[in-house]
Amino acid sequence: MLFTYTVRSKKREELIDITNLLLDAIKRSGVNEGFAIIYAPHTTAAITINENADPTVKGDIINYLSKLIPKNYNYKHLEGNSDAHIKSSIIGCSEMIIIKDGKPILGTWQGLFFAEFDGPRERKVYIKIFEG
Amino acid sequence: MLFTYTVRSKKREELIDITNLLLDAIKRSGVNEGFAIIYAPHTTAAITINENADPTVKGDIINYLSKLIPKNYNYKHLEGNSDAHIKSSIIGCSEMIIIKDGKPILGTWQGLFFAEFDGPRERKVYIKIFEG
Amino acid sequence: MLFTYTVRSKKREELIDITNLLLDAIKRSGVNEGFAIIYAPHTTAAITINENADPTVKGDIINYLSKLIPKNYNYKHLEGNSDAHIKSSIIGCSEMIIIKDGKPILGTWQGLFFAEFDGPRERKVYIKIFEG
Repeated sequence: MLFTYTVRSKKREELIDITNLLLDAIKRSGVNEGFAIIYAPHTTAAITINENADPTVKGDIINYLSKLIPKNYNYKHLEGNSDAHIKSSIIGCSEMIIIKDGKPILGTWQGLFFAEFDGPRERKVYIKIFEG
Repeated sequence: MLFTYTVRSKKREELIDITNLLLDAIKRSGVNEGFAIIYAPHTTAAITINENADPTVKGDIINYLSKLIPKNYNYKHLEGNSDAHIKSSIIGCSEMIIIKDGKPILGTWQGLFFAEFDGPRERKVYIKIFEG
Repeated sequence: MLFTYTVRSKKREELIDITNLLLDAIKRSGVNEGFAIIYAPHTTAAITINENADPTVKGDIINYLSKLIPKNYNYKHLEGNSDAHIKSSIIGCSEMIIIKDGKPILGTWQGLFFAEFDGPRERKVYIKIFEG
């Protein structure tokens, strides 16, 4: 089953916790054993899994990625968002998560994040749940 | 169903649009609802999803990755392609894409790319289509 | 079928070949055609695929990642492992591998690795085998 969600970012770059969307999709699917694909249909955003306990981790990831891949550089693409495209390919626009007993098997500190690299915008996230 | 394709790169580093291979595999599989795994069985190449409209985006990704991870550095591996191995692990050798109504649900600007980091060479791409 | 493995790292940062765990899971599952999800439920580790022939490749990947993302920087997270969190999102905490004729279709030089970025520790790896 395929679920479509809307995520609204508020900054140019931020990690938005979307673990609740995954829980919602699994619950609505009724699937107990299987896996989920979480997919961002965007070229200047990504999906990642990281710590959702201490919020400084999110900030360190976003800030250090911007140090590694600065907004302003001698890029050829003229929309001013080449850094966001590069980050999208480095982090990747999807994740997959195993489902067991009707729950995602995330580690103790893991949360699921939408990574916005060229916001603020309204974005889409697809979550497809497979049984198996 | 598993499909094997050959991709021929022409430069040491380039992004090659292989969206047509994905469309071909989905069509030949006859699958309407499911997902695809796109996999490069290589350690100096990768698979990525990014913008296929303005070709400067491809160039910016390739060029900036080479700035971040230069060909020449104090690497221990003596084949002169450690940069390509590192880029392969950073970008990742596979992608997965959801299939709906017999089509991949790529975003408006998304295309599928084979990322060559140590060409020119003849390379393989596996595309497996799953129903579900 | 879901299999849980324990991996013990011996250094702060290292790539540990876990291809044998994948072979074990596929064999025990009895699946001939399908795919595997290999998943690390950790936020300071990752799963990657790269060369398992010449061990200098592993070392170059680990060393260059630490040059790109140093342990000591002006990070806000106070546990001293922000670099490990950033590397985890860049490399990614999962991989998927197609199964054909009861074997993973890894390329000639490809091996599967657990990437430790904040060890030494005892870690978990989940491998789920799907038929299809």
